[in-house]
Formats: sequence, C-alpha cells, structure tokens
Amino acid sequence: MRVLDLICKKRDGEILTTEEINLLIDEFNRGNVPDYQMSALLMTIYFQGLNTKELTALTAALAHSGDTLDFSFLGTMVADKHSTGGVGDKITLIMGPLVAAAGVPLAKISGRGLGFTGGTIDKLESIPGFKTRLSAEKFMELVKENNIAIMAQTDKITPAEGKLYALRDVTGTVENLSLIAASIMSKKIAAGAGAIILDVKLGKGAFIQDREAAFRLAETMFRIGKEMGREVISVVTNMNQPLGFAVGNILEIKEVLSVLKGEGPADLEQLSTILGGYLLALMGKARNPEEGKEELLRFIKDGTGLAKFKELIAAQGGDNAYLEDPSLFPTAKFNQELVAPRSGYLQEIHAGKIGRVAALLGAGRSYKEQQIDPAVGITLNYKVGELVVEGATLAHVHANDEDSLEAAVKELYGAFTIGEEKAEDLPLIYGVVPSFPC
Amino acid sequence: MRVLDLICKKRDGEILTTEEINLLIDEFNRGNVPDYQMSALLMTIYFQGLNTKELTALTAALAHSGDTLDFSFLGTMVADKHSTGGVGDKITLIMGPLVAAAGVPLAKISGRGLGFTGGTIDKLESIPGFKTRLSAEKFMELVKENNIAIMAQTDKITPAEGKLYALRDVTGTVENLSLIAASIMSKKIAAGAGAIILDVKLGKGAFIQDREAAFRLAETMFRIGKEMGREVISVVTNMNQPLGFAVGNILEIKEVLSVLKGEGPADLEQLSTILGGYLLALMGKARNPEEGKEELLRFIKDGTGLAKFKELIAAQGGDNAYLEDPSLFPTAKFNQELVAPRSGYLQEIHAGKIGRVAALLGAGRSYKEQQIDPAVGITLNYKVGELVVEGATLAHVHANDEDSLEAAVKELYGAFTIGEEKAEDLPLIYGVVPSFPC
Repeated sequence: MRVLDLICKKRDGEILTTEEINLLIDEFNRGNVPDYQMSALLMTIYFQGLNTKELTALTAALAHSGDTLDFSFLGTMVADKHSTGGVGDKITLIMGPLVAAAGVPLAKISGRGLGFTGGTIDKLESIPGFKTRLSAEKFMELVKENNIAIMAQTDKITPAEGKLYALRDVTGTVENLSLIAASIMSKKIAAGAGAIILDVKLGKGAFIQDREAAFRLAETMFRIGKEMGREVISVVTNMNQPLGFAVGNILEIKEVLSVLKGEGPADLEQLSTILGGYLLALMGKARNPEEGKEELLRFIKDGTGLAKFKELIAAQGGDNAYLEDPSLFPTAKFNQELVAPRSGYLQEIHAGKIGRVAALLGAGRSYKEQQIDPAVGITLNYKVGELVVEGATLAHVHANDEDSLEAAVKELYGAFTIGEEKAEDLPLIYGVVPSFPC
Repeated sequence: MRVLDLICKKRDGEILTTEEINLLIDEFNRGNVPDYQMSALLMTIYFQGLNTKELTALTAALAHSGDTLDFSFLGTMVADKHSTGGVGDKITLIMGPLVAAAGVPLAKISGRGLGFTGGTIDKLESIPGFKTRLSAEKFMELVKENNIAIMAQTDKITPAEGKLYALRDVTGTVENLSLIAASIMSKKIAAGAGAIILDVKLGKGAFIQDREAAFRLAETMFRIGKEMGREVISVVTNMNQPLGFAVGNILEIKEVLSVLKGEGPADLEQLSTILGGYLLALMGKARNPEEGKEELLRFIKDGTGLAKFKELIAAQGGDNAYLEDPSLFPTAKFNQELVAPRSGYLQEIHAGKIGRVAALLGAGRSYKEQQIDPAVGITLNYKVGELVVEGATLAHVHANDEDSLEAAVKELYGAFTIGEEKAEDLPLIYGVVPSFPC
C-alpha cells in the first residue's frame, strides 16, 4: 500500500477498502505514515466524506489500535454514555449512579474538559482522593462489584485515535462529522460497550450549532454502532443555556448531590432520567424508556441513586466526608453577585459565553496541559423564560483572583438577554435517533 | 498569522489575502510551517481552488522566494517558453535558436525529464561538454551576447516552489490546475521573462488528457501573466502521438539538427515556427504571428537557425564536432526493428506508451535522482493516418541491454493501432489563448 495512492483515490471520490483502512491506521499507529500524508488524507476525507462501510472500518481500526476491554466475563452487556460536550453538563454523574442502581453495569472512560466545555474527569477529581487513573483490571473489577466505574482516558486504549486527533487539531480537520463519529465510537467500542447512549449537544454552548449537523452526527454514530453490533440510541439535546445552575467543578459536584437528593434543578433531573430511561430500555431493564425514567425518578426519591454515587466515589478513593457535608469543599476567595440591570423576561442565557467566562475564571482549559481551579465558576439563579426584576441577582461569580473576577463580571453581562417579550421555552430534547427505539 | 486559521479559512470557502499568502510562503520557505499543515492547506486548495487574486499573490510569493533575474540592463524584454511536457518534444531546441536569430532574447531555465516526458536539459547534456549549470551572471551575459541561453533550474531561484512541489508530489496535490499554473508562472517571473509562450500539451502523452482542463490551465496562466504585467500567449497543442519521429536524448538532438537543416519532420518544423511566430509578434519583431512564422521558416531554409543553434551549444561548452557530424554521437548497442503485424492505416501511435517504453529503456527517469542513458530510445517511421503494409518497419528500438530491449519491444506493440479505416488527421494545435493575440 502506498499512502499516496489512498490519498488520490479518496481525493477522486473513490471508496477505500476495509483492508486499506486497516493497514493505513495500523501503519500510522506504528509511526510509518508521515504526518504530511495523513493530514492530506484527512483533508480529502473532510471534503469527500466516508460512506458507512468506510466509517465502520475506520472506527474498528481505531478501536483495535491498542488495548480493548472485554467484559464478557460479566455475562451481560456493559453500557456506556457519551456527551459531545456542553456547559454545566453533569448528566453522567447523575444518570450513571441511577442506572447502576437499576442493575445496568456502566463502564465509563471519560475525557477532561477543553475549551468552554467541562469534563467529567475534572469534576470527579475535585473530590479529594478520587482516583481517575485506574488499570484496566481495576476498572473492570469495579464495574463488576459496583455496576459503575469512571476512569480517565489512557494512551493504551485507542492510541491511533489520540494521534489522529492531535493531527486533526492542528490541520483544520476536527470539524468533520465522519471523523468525529468514528473518533467517539472507536473509544466506546474499545472500552467494551455493548449498549451506548449518545448525547449530541446542539446550541450555543455546544460545538454543533446547526440542527441538521447534529442529527447527521447522531445518525452517523447510530449507524456505526449498528454495523458493529452495538445497541445505540443518540439523543439530540439542547445546549443553548447551561444545564442546571452550576458551571465549575466543585459547584457542579454540589449540584449533582442536590439532584440526587431530589432537590433539583428540574432540567438536570429530567434529562438524566430521560437518558437513563432510554438506556434501561436498551438494556432490557425496563419495558420502555418511560418506565425506565419512572424507575430512576424513584431512585432519586428513595436515595438509592445518592447511595450509589457515594459508593462510586468511595470505591475510587474519594473522601465521602465531602459528600456528606459539601460545605467542606473549598470555596473561591471572591463571590460576587451579578445584578439584573433591568426588569423583564430572560430571553437568553448564552451557554457558550457562560462557558468561556468559567474557563477564564480557571474552571476550564484553553490548552491541554493547563491546570484547572476546582473552586471557581458561576452559579445561576434563573433559567430562560423566567421574569427578573431590576437589581435581582442573576448569578454569582466565584473567583480566586481580582483580575479574573473583574474580567468575568464584565463579560458575563453579555451572556444575558432581558427583554419585554417572554421567550419561547427551550425544549430539553430535539429528537431521538432511531425515532422508534427498542 | 496562525497557519491553522488559514487552513480553516480556505476550507470554509473564504479568500486568502495577499498578505496572508506572502507571509505563508515566506514562513514555509524559512522552514517555519510544518509540512503537515502545508499539505492540509494544499488539499483545501485542491478542493476550493484559488481566485485570480490569490493565484497572482501565490505566484508572486513563490517567484520572490529566492533570487530573481533582472534583464532590464538589456533595454528590452526577454522572452521565455514553457511546455507542460510531452513525448518527443524538442520544440525549445528548434524554436529557441530561430527566434534568437530573429532578434528575440530568449532566457530559458529548463527542467529535467520526469516520468514519461523528456526534459530539455537532459537532451542538451547528451552533447559532450555542454554545461547546463550556469551562474546567474553567466546566464545573463550569454543572453546578452547570443540572444539565447538555456540553463538548468537551481535551488537559488524559487526555492519555495521547489519545496512546495516536493510536498505536493507525495500528498496528492500535484494534479491541480491552480497550483500547476502558479508553479510554472512563478519560475517564469523569477527568471525575468517579459514575454512568455506557453505550450500546454493535451493528449495521451501529456499529463492533461482533458480538453477543458487544458484550456483552463492555458487561460489561468494567461490571466496570471496579465495580472503581473507579462505578455503571455498560451497554445494548447496535440500530444496524442509523439512530436517528430525521435524519442530519446541523442536521437532527439539529431532530429533537431535535421529540422534546422530543413529536412523535417514536418510536424516539428510547423509547430516550432508557429509558436515562434507568436513569440515574434508578442515581442513586436513581426507584425503578426503568420509573418513571424514565415520569417522563421526562412531562417531554416537559409541556415541562420542552425548557425544560432551551434552558437548556443558552443557558448555553453558543447562540442560542435558532434553537430557537424552526428555520427560521432554514441549509439545504443542494440537496434531492433519493430515490424508491422498487419497492413492497414495507423490509427494511433500512443505517445504515453511510447514515452513509458523510452523511459524503460533508460531515456527517462521514474525518480528524480535516476541516471539516464543518452543513447537509447525509439525512432518512429510513420505518423498517424499513414498506410503501412505488413512487415514494414514501424519503429526502431535503441537499447543498451537485452532485457530492456525485449521488454520494450513487447510493450511497444501496444502503442500502435492499425485498422481498416483511415483515422482523422490529428490537428497540431487545438487553440490559442487569448483568441486574438497581440
């Protein structure tokens, strides 16, 4: 195989064979394909796309480029969940314990946050003692024991995906639905998932802001999963305003506890139980998504979900004292109110802007190696559609230094739009792929 | 400037500014742009194209990436000629001395052959003693003295073009009309050309086999030239059968002598004087191309062209004894006849196949550093449209070893199509851009 021939083939609109894709990824993974050829090929894929067969081959090749986890010893499928990234998105930490309590083994390998979206691993690491670096053996053992474990990505799993992403990141080939779909699905496949719930975020706080693109991504990932014998449901959800009220790592952990105690916010409770309900139905643990959702709502009411969350934290070395008494968590030095400059309806709370301000405060990263500050962030008091009066507290800014506080407050005003007209309620969910699941 | 931003800009269909292109090529030339970003950008250009402004900026940036020649001391424009490459194409060596004799200073920097097309420099170097490596000073001095000099490309002129081509060669981005046009024109501009005649080859022995693409390239180069204040005529010419009868370096030099002595072949005499006629008109040395052509035909008849050719060879150290007595040239060890297997009309003499067989014999290169054998090649006895009888000699194969001879003879039969019907005569010229020159 000459890589140049593959570039020209794809460039001219032809289809790459599974053997070609396997060999390409294998040689790339071994360092035998120069980056300048791989980036040229990635750009041809950007323009020419990949058909389902090519996509499946690419996903499989990436999935098998390193270690893969085999949960067959459990005698049952394990589940996985993925979000394409949003602001205030702590669904995994709510939904995970709930479905685990319902008997679904959830083996979740998570990423860190980058840009304006947060990462589950960062949130978990804000709990003192919590270990996100686990060996594959330990991870699998925890899934067996507790039905849930959450670990950070390692270089051992899908190394070719990691290398490919690093190259895409500097060559303008990140923003391609085929490559995004293959990248996400390869990690799920390698992690041994049999059933996968995919949360495709759409809106101002997501990287996809085009409805058609979101559904295309949802469908593409569903199709790859189907081709590879995985049960997949993709849900396109709203990411125009932040999920819940809290944005920032410790602030979000506190909010997770609140939801699991039945104290809301409502949007988080709803979306977590809806997505969990789909997963229960997919795993045969509920007759349909609605029944699944109802069961998970019961697990919130009766404290089963909270108990499972504490179990998860303790199993991975986290100090449960912080969960028992969240006031033990460190707080930011400054806590400044953002005051409504006028009365009216909240027409927009721009999730992207909120996410960027949170990152500016230190809650997120603008580059991969950046340290984050677990205590800082933003807590909101309202959702879009609510009425505010002049002088009311729109939000609190939690900052650890005066400069970033000042900049954040200034920026943050731009995230809120207050007007005379009541804005339409934002739906939680735009759609589900496939339309008639299970 | 972040190269990534330029990639994304171009990828998304936006236009790069002249400043961006200048900076990009400058930084690339200095080694500050990683190849993997440049190749991604080249592939976006492959798909998105370049508009005239971008093309002109790219051409200028490449042209000014190294030394440029300034012939203004001559007090007159110098001319240049370029062929996109063909089989048996020795037009430069015939047309050059003729137009020089007519008072046109021709400063020609030429390439070596690659693939199945031959290179003017290789042909000239088959004349013992001829030097193709000249300093810029020597080159300019010779143009002043003799109205003609032909030198090999150097790394000092358009170095960024050389680096860019090397990258295009391994990333599937050679076959793009915008990049081809900018590449060719940058070299002409850097070499100081004021008037340029471009021979765009179209057909089975050229890299362009699509009529529309050939005219698009011809127009693109004309447009770039116009934007940069150069007089340009692009002529799209036929390269389905080889030009003349000889393919191979010494064999072609002998054929050049034959044409300059008025002994044909006719197609070479015609095309050389037609292209030269355009150049004379462009330079104001003839009232129109036809008059120019007539003058050049006279220079063949009266020996002025041949004398100028000998002057060129002598001026660059070549041994004119070989021109006086071409039998002094070394000949190949084997000279085998290719015999017509049946009687009929020659319907095709496939230039591409002939070129590849010549390369196989050692007359051309399949990679850049390959040594060529000046004595080997193919001489044809017929042109398309002629009648042959079974057993007639179609061609001679000149080989220096038995293995390549055998392989060549076998392959060569596939280049000839003999049939009952007389094929349509192949036109020498498909068209001229601009349509009404001068």
